[in-house]
Formats: sequence, structure tokens, C-alpha cells
Amino acid sequence: MEEQGLQYLAEAREATGLKIVTEVMDAASVELVAAYADILQIGARNMQNFHLLKAVGRCGKPVLLKRGIAATIAEWLHAAEYILNEGNYNVILCERGIRTFEEYTRNTLDLSAVGAIKHLSHLPVIVDPSHGTGKWRLVRPMAMAAVAAGADGLLIEVHPNPAEALSDGPQSLNPANFAALMEDVRELAAFLRRHSA
Amino acid sequence: MEEQGLQYLAEAREATGLKIVTEVMDAASVELVAAYADILQIGARNMQNFHLLKAVGRCGKPVLLKRGIAATIAEWLHAAEYILNEGNYNVILCERGIRTFEEYTRNTLDLSAVGAIKHLSHLPVIVDPSHGTGKWRLVRPMAMAAVAAGADGLLIEVHPNPAEALSDGPQSLNPANFAALMEDVRELAAFLRRHSA
Amino acid sequence: MEEQGLQYLAEAREATGLKIVTEVMDAASVELVAAYADILQIGARNMQNFHLLKAVGRCGKPVLLKRGIAATIAEWLHAAEYILNEGNYNVILCERGIRTFEEYTRNTLDLSAVGAIKHLSHLPVIVDPSHGTGKWRLVRPMAMAAVAAGADGLLIEVHPNPAEALSDGPQSLNPANFAALMEDVRELAAFLRRHSA
Amino acid sequence: MEEQGLQYLAEAREATGLKIVTEVMDAASVELVAAYADILQIGARNMQNFHLLKAVGRCGKPVLLKRGIAATIAEWLHAAEYILNEGNYNVILCERGIRTFEEYTRNTLDLSAVGAIKHLSHLPVIVDPSHGTGKWRLVRPMAMAAVAAGADGLLIEVHPNPAEALSDGPQSLNPANFAALMEDVRELAAFLRRHSA
Repeated sequence: MEEQGLQYLAEAREATGLKIVTEVMDAASVELVAAYADILQIGARNMQNFHLLKAVGRCGKPVLLKRGIAATIAEWLHAAEYILNEGNYNVILCERGIRTFEEYTRNTLDLSAVGAIKHLSHLPVIVDPSHGTGKWRLVRPMAMAAVAAGADGLLIEVHPNPAEALSDGPQSLNPANFAALMEDVRELAAFLRRHSA
Repeated sequence: MEEQGLQYLAEAREATGLKIVTEVMDAASVELVAAYADILQIGARNMQNFHLLKAVGRCGKPVLLKRGIAATIAEWLHAAEYILNEGNYNVILCERGIRTFEEYTRNTLDLSAVGAIKHLSHLPVIVDPSHGTGKWRLVRPMAMAAVAAGADGLLIEVHPNPAEALSDGPQSLNPANFAALMEDVRELAAFLRRHSA
Repeated sequence: MEEQGLQYLAEAREATGLKIVTEVMDAASVELVAAYADILQIGARNMQNFHLLKAVGRCGKPVLLKRGIAATIAEWLHAAEYILNEGNYNVILCERGIRTFEEYTRNTLDLSAVGAIKHLSHLPVIVDPSHGTGKWRLVRPMAMAAVAAGADGLLIEVHPNPAEALSDGPQSLNPANFAALMEDVRELAAFLRRHSA
Repeated sequence: MEEQGLQYLAEAREATGLKIVTEVMDAASVELVAAYADILQIGARNMQNFHLLKAVGRCGKPVLLKRGIAATIAEWLHAAEYILNEGNYNVILCERGIRTFEEYTRNTLDLSAVGAIKHLSHLPVIVDPSHGTGKWRLVRPMAMAAVAAGADGLLIEVHPNPAEALSDGPQSLNPANFAALMEDVRELAAFLRRHSA
């Protein structure tokens, strides 16, 4: 939907007070997307699109950098360096699953990456259990696990009626399940702050 | 060390009150090991050793079945069926990491398998973050994450002096870190019981 | 080097009579690259860059589409559809290795993809044993194997002095080894034409 | 079928003059199988069954060691060492595919392993394109490719009527296709001897 889609998102922000995170697909669109979005997302397929990484490094907005489905943790951090090197230190990493032989889940969500990133860098890392598993029943346990592993945030798909969603329905939570999960996540995070090693 | 090793384990049980879990490597040894151990472990390399699976299915002791490093969740459950089919329903599954392209961790610990097993079967599932990551620094976050994902237990390597361990030192906790983790795991488990979905 | 690099390539074509294949990295550069190159290459990292695929679909030049390191054969063929759908039927597929757990080779060159592509589509498929293995000693056997598997061509790195190459030296053939290989490949191809099933 | 099955195989050898290769599943059966078979096969699932490896190392018969589906080339050679260390130098390695994310083929047949083994060891290496691909249409191209890559032999499934096979039908050649392939393989091998680098 190009710019009109961005305007709709801006209206939604106005109406709800929510921040907007949206994906930018190529270097040529960075300026336009940065004019509307609060955070620019680099998708897993673009994790090594170095033109794009440099462009968001100069855009003045925070960047959410998703891990490529076949990217090692080291490659992911190298990709982040392209953004940091342009002077943009507001980089958030997002683990969203890697491709393995397992077929039950869409990807294999690698929660050990959370602890690895915490050890190897100072960057915040969030987790996307929806894309990472492809199954809504696994979103709750993996969201709780991600927080317990030390994740700084979650990216979760929600749909008012997952059964009728045009895309990603099977991995989306309905609003009631999402609200219940968020309440438990908040309490878990508070529990963990009281028990930090 | 063969039978003498089992006798040492039995003495350790006598002295400490701890239960003994030990690995059985082939069908011919099942009777001997079952005479000493409380739980017989099937290692990842033997997950599809069908002779051995049938033999432990007839041994009368609980069995801890580790997931093969290249086994799908479906194959793992099929392996468990070989034990169940012999009438031994005391099977505990243990997720211990799968082999992927990632090189930072020894294996990729697949915590989504915990929720998958809970959905697909009635069997208890535990998690081994020591073998699953190969790095002691990742043991604590992944142990906490495993419990938050719904795991029924943990298998953690401890060594009085990891730096001098003959094997698996880099993935072993020292007793102080282990004790601190166990205390937090217990409180996390209690927290989760109060917040079950 | 941007456009100057393309001019150097054009001069090399003038001097040698060789055709030029060069990579295009984003949709914005397609027109410029198409003005110089005989064949536009889409690199493995851009295999699912759909803007770029559509742009080369409209460029009027043949396209060499490399397989992504984590792309299934089905996904690779779907990527080719984006180019074909724009009316450009001159698409050449290039197998260059997939990412697996194996560490001896840089990638695992999947020669079964050659036969699979021949069965599933009408597109020509070539093989890159240099990137596919990362080791010059494996280039000859895998080049011969690729031709025997039915590949329509090879993409091989050559350097006058591999030990001093700025990049990709360990996987490059020197000119003497390359010439010897080419002679044998030609004879093997002739042999295979006489023995087609 | 235990020993009766071995007797049937011995009768088939008597009647046909063909050598017998058959799999041995555990150390306890090695003596019995060695009494009948010409070559003992260690299956992919037992590649790291060290009791069994040692036992066949002492059996006095050649051993065919299949690569594990998640075994690196280095681990495969280490497994062979267990047999060699017992004084049995007649070890044949067999590449039969590794597990990857690809779904079109049952496994990914890693022909680069042939050249790697030739470089790293003195052991003969053969290739199994039937299990390696799981699809009979890919058996011919991958058999030819294996020979071109330098393989010392092939392991190919044949069934008089693949459509009615109790197991492995989809990957089995019928006798006519097998005979045609063998003729071409023989001529290809002769061609390659005339063109060895």
C-alpha cells in the first residue's frame, strides 16, 4: 500500500497512542518510512542487505533488526555493526527462529541467542515467538520462556479473529489470550527483577 | 568402569539419599544397570536403537529418553512408543539440543519442543541446558527459560571445580552457582503454578 | 566501484570477447547494470528480494538466479516465478551450496537440486563448486560431478595467483588447473551426450 | 528374521555368486553375522555406537560404515578410527545423505564428502543415491555424479516391481533402469580413468 499504508499507521498511532514499528524493504524507501514510523524494522530476509543497513544507520530512528533464518549469532551482530557504524546506536535485535530440519514448528526459536547476545554485546534483544514457532499454542510458553531467558521484549501477532486472518492466522493469538499472556509476562518480569543473579 | 562404576553409584545413593540416573548403552547391559539404577537413561545417540528401546521397555524401571541431535519431535515420540509398547509407561523425555548451523552454542536447545510434547503427548519432559548449550554462562538463562516453557525438570551438570573437569567443564556450573539457580528455579516454579493459563 | 566498475567490465568484454555476468544488488541499480552486463546475477542473499526480482524481470537481459543458502528448491523456483511473471523467460538457476551443520566445506553443495530442477521445471541450471565448497581441491571433483548430474554450466572462480587473492583465494583455481578442468569437462559433456538415458 | 535371514542370504550367494553385505545392529550379533556375510554394514544410526564399532573391528571381515545423518565428515572419520584401531583396515565409507532443511529430497546427498575423504584419508568411499535422495528419478543423475566425483562404488536399491515394494519403493530402480545405469556407470568410470587429473 506504500505511503497510504504508512498514513493509516500514523492515524492508528494518533487514535491509540501506540508506537509504530514497520518494515522497510529497500534503501530507497528509508526516508519515507522514517517520516512516519517510530521504529524501522529490517526483516530476516534483509539482514545482510548492506545498502539497507547503512541507510537505516543514517535515518535517525531506532532500528529493529531481525535475525536471518540461516544467520549465525556472529553474522547477526556483524549486520548490526553496519547500522552502528553509521552512528545509529538505537538497534534492537529480534530473535525470530532459525531454519532447521524440524518440521513441527515453522522455525526453531533459538532462545539461547538471548543469553549469547547479552554476553557478547550491549544491545537489547527481543523475541518473536509467533514467527518463531508458527503455532499459536506455542506462543504463550515460548513468550514466558523468552522473558525468563532475559529477553527485553516480545513481538507477538494478535488478530481479532485468527481463524479469518488473511495471513499468519495459525500463529496469531486472539485478544483474550494476548491480554492474559501480557498480564502474566508483566508479573514474570517483576518476579525476575527480584531474582536477578 | 562397568559394574564397579554402578556399585560406586549405589554407595553414593546410600550416603546421600539421591536417586541414580545412569546411561545404558546396549540391550545386553539393561538387566545389570537396572539392578543398580533408579532411572535408566537412553543417550541421544541411541534414541533410535530399537533393540535397546525394547529392552528398557521390559526392565521395570523408569526410562529417561534423550532426543537425538537430528531427531524431529515426531521421531522422538515414535522412539518413546517402543518403550511404551513393552508396557513401561514411566518414560521421561529430555530435550538436549539439536544440531544446526549455529556455532556459538554446541547445539541449539529447542525449548519449543517442551510445549509441543505437552500438546502431543502425556509424557513428562525435562531439559538439559548444559549439553544443549555447551556453555555454563547460558545454563542459568536457559534453565529458567525451560521452566517457564513448562518443563517438568532439569538436567544440569555440576562440578566442584569446572576448570579442572576431565570432561564437560566448560558447560558445568560450580556448586555455588548451581545452588543459587536451584533456589530461583524453585521460586519460579511456584510463581508459575500460581499463574497457569 | 559503481559505474566505473561496469565500464572496466565492458572494456574487458571488448578486449576478450567474453560475456559479462555481474551482480545487481538492488532494484534501483538494475537499469544501470543492464546497460553494461550481458547477464544480471541475483546473489544468494537477494533470492527473496522481491522488488529486485520484479525489476530484473523487466530489464530485458538474462538473469542468473543463485539459490539462497537456506532456500528450499521449491522456494527457489518460486523466486524464479517473480522474474518469469514479468515476461522475462531467460532465467538461469545456479546451485551454490546450502547451509548445514557440516564444517569442513563452507556450504553443502546440493547436486540433487540439479536433477530436481530438471524434473520440476524447464529452466537451465548451473553449479558453482567454488562457493559451494570453499576449497579449491574440491572444485574439480564437484565440477565433474555437477556435469555428470546434468548441470548446464559451471561457475568457477579463477585467480592468476590464488595465494594472493584479496578474496576467495582458498576456493579459486589457478589458470593451469582451470584449463585442465575445462578440457575434461568438455570431454565429459560429449561423453554424456552419447550416453543420455 | 535373525539367523534364518542370514541363511537365506547365504543361499542367494551360493545361487548367484554375489557377495553379501548385511547390516549388524549390535555388538552381540557381530560373530553370528560375520559367519555368514562377506561385508558387515554399520547403519547410519549406529555410526557412533562405539561398542559395535570395536566389535566389528575384531570380526575379521570388511566393514561398510555409513555416515550418520547428522555426522560431520570429521566425526565419520573418527568413527572409522574405532574400527581401524582394532586392527581391521578393511573399512569402506558410505555417504548416504545428511539431514538438512530441504524437503524435496529425503536427505541431502553430500557428494563433496567424496573428495574430502579422498583428501583426508586413504579409505575407499562409496555413495548411496537411493537413501540419499529418496526418489528413484534422482538415483541415476546422482549415481553418475558420485562416480564423476571420484566415488569407488555405489549402493543402489533395486526392486523387481518398485510400486509394490514393502519398503523403499519410491527410491528403488526397476531392473531395466538399473541395468542401463550400470552400463553407463562402467563406461563413465573407464572415461574417468583416462582423464584422471
